[in-house]
Amino acid sequence: MADRPLPDWAGRLQRFRSDYRAQDLEAFVVSAPANLTYLCGFRGSAGLLLDLAGRTQLIVDGRYVGIARQLVETGEMGPVLVQPVTLRYDATLLEALGEIAGGRVGFEAEEVTVAGWQQWQAAVPAVSWIPVDRVVASRRMIKDASEVFALRRAAAALAEIARNLRTLVREGCTEREVARAIDQAMDSAGFSENAFPTIVASGPNSAHPHARPTDRRLASGDLVVLDFGGRLDGYCGDLTRMAGIGQVSADARALFDAVREAHAAAVATVRAGALSSGVDAAARQVLEARGLGDAFLHATGHGLGLDVHEAPRLAREAPNRATRLEAGMVCTVEPGAYVDGLGGVRLEDDVLVTTEGCEVLTDAPRDLLVV
Amino acid sequence: MADRPLPDWAGRLQRFRSDYRAQDLEAFVVSAPANLTYLCGFRGSAGLLLDLAGRTQLIVDGRYVGIARQLVETGEMGPVLVQPVTLRYDATLLEALGEIAGGRVGFEAEEVTVAGWQQWQAAVPAVSWIPVDRVVASRRMIKDASEVFALRRAAAALAEIARNLRTLVREGCTEREVARAIDQAMDSAGFSENAFPTIVASGPNSAHPHARPTDRRLASGDLVVLDFGGRLDGYCGDLTRMAGIGQVSADARALFDAVREAHAAAVATVRAGALSSGVDAAARQVLEARGLGDAFLHATGHGLGLDVHEAPRLAREAPNRATRLEAGMVCTVEPGAYVDGLGGVRLEDDVLVTTEGCEVLTDAPRDLLVV
Repeated sequence: MADRPLPDWAGRLQRFRSDYRAQDLEAFVVSAPANLTYLCGFRGSAGLLLDLAGRTQLIVDGRYVGIARQLVETGEMGPVLVQPVTLRYDATLLEALGEIAGGRVGFEAEEVTVAGWQQWQAAVPAVSWIPVDRVVASRRMIKDASEVFALRRAAAALAEIARNLRTLVREGCTEREVARAIDQAMDSAGFSENAFPTIVASGPNSAHPHARPTDRRLASGDLVVLDFGGRLDGYCGDLTRMAGIGQVSADARALFDAVREAHAAAVATVRAGALSSGVDAAARQVLEARGLGDAFLHATGHGLGLDVHEAPRLAREAPNRATRLEAGMVCTVEPGAYVDGLGGVRLEDDVLVTTEGCEVLTDAPRDLLVV
Repeated sequence: MADRPLPDWAGRLQRFRSDYRAQDLEAFVVSAPANLTYLCGFRGSAGLLLDLAGRTQLIVDGRYVGIARQLVETGEMGPVLVQPVTLRYDATLLEALGEIAGGRVGFEAEEVTVAGWQQWQAAVPAVSWIPVDRVVASRRMIKDASEVFALRRAAAALAEIARNLRTLVREGCTEREVARAIDQAMDSAGFSENAFPTIVASGPNSAHPHARPTDRRLASGDLVVLDFGGRLDGYCGDLTRMAGIGQVSADARALFDAVREAHAAAVATVRAGALSSGVDAAARQVLEARGLGDAFLHATGHGLGLDVHEAPRLAREAPNRATRLEAGMVCTVEPGAYVDGLGGVRLEDDVLVTTEGCEVLTDAPRDLLVV
């Protein structure tokens, strides 16, 4: 397989800079780890990116200085100046921002806590700290070639596991055993880690959308939700398929069929120009028509990228709050229905929005896997 | 084993109420999931707790209403009124807070983002939204009998796994294989989930404090960091031990001995009345005396409870920022030293602060496990 194209670090930093400067800001501090990864390739768990006067500094602690400088040199990270943090980040910011006293410094409103804001204000009172909505997150919604490559690969690897679920799911196994077997399959497929704890929810447990695997043994008649995802080269895939153990009841089968139809209806509405809320409505209408409106307990999908949940959300929203889909967005489509006493069903694929519609990246059968 | 004492929900809610009222607030909104768990036992991934006029409402979405009401009824959750969220949390808050127009409503400064604050201000502009530092977090630092019981059990179960590490670590295994074996041992011991992704870092990888397991095979001469933790009945344990594969070099052995001495020195300083920074300094002085000051790349420890990292931090701080330890705090003590070309060593235990000193909850040998 071809190698993943190197991200266009310089382009990402340039767009970021022009985005925040358009808001009359002289500098910007980014703290969310996934946004640091997006802007310059840094993958540590903590750090600050400070863009100021045409120069990007990455401020990190002793664990990361050496490796980050090395990766900048080889081009695996973007063109940033790696600075070790002095005793505290505050002191380092004070030093760096001293030169623009009176200036306006932006930060990510949806990533920084109120306490964090207060701390920065106290540490560097000579500048105005301005919360800004979704500067990096907005750009991250539209995936570039390097990201689509990584997402396509993660989704394809998950689909391959989905095609082989028959070898992992068996009557008499516990939910945990099946979850660990799926985790091992993700390891073998090259995923560096789980994107979230694998869900294997059987029988009555399947009626809870976010059930954790238990020691319950899969038994004849069970519906089984299998929801798993992993991170490959930094990017997330996320997939849900359904198994039925032995003979499931006619009601369970009807529940499955309803969700499958809702899933197909939602996927059919995905295209550049559609509203995120419209995709949700398409799934919801199918379920409502079958009296399952109240059984659909969550949103229809979410964006997928460096984070397993990112913008946009495909949810029930007023049109003025909804997102208009654009080519290059990658989302999950995952309607579900959950009925106490009967069980739950969810089907989930990852899709790439295109101008004509969408490309389903997780290409594996969606039938109820009867084992 | 005796059952865990039921948490004193009413007492926790009462103390919370008197804490925020002491700050001249008429109501308080809690949103951090772990703080919801602490105050009323709710374990869902989202929800709001609104305390107002002597009444505590838990506002949750459709997934959780039924189960939460049931648990309140049986006393497994605290005495809260479970309210389903209307279309959005904002609308539900507006409805509930309408009665105190002009009032002051507190929220957790360190848990709510600036965007979240702005959203609440826009949704309910008739009240003043006041950020407050660490209202719930301060109480959570001191564990009550029910919490100590749970933490003791989690730590003891981890220690039991540590005593059997010899059966899980072998030359020729990959780091991932060892990590999965540890995960399985945690499953079998009754942990509901990992508290964090298990770290198995061998040879050169051990020099990175937060390395993720790779496909590298354990080879003769390796130092191997084994850092794992799990959640049991909601509470976290966290433990690190070291293995050496075959014969490790004299330098590696000296590195191990230095960290072991630093660990012992730090544990010896833990007692009610000591400063958090003093515990850190005790470990740091041992390592500095051996020329390893720069090799100690992180703090000495962190609080442990519903979250695997919570207050207090045992770190290098000015005395006025440090925390004075109190009986009932539970912390990790985990000095380490990391040297490129040689490898890394970390030893970690969970300790309960007492008036006389501390009780080590993770009682397992700390020797270099030679396999």
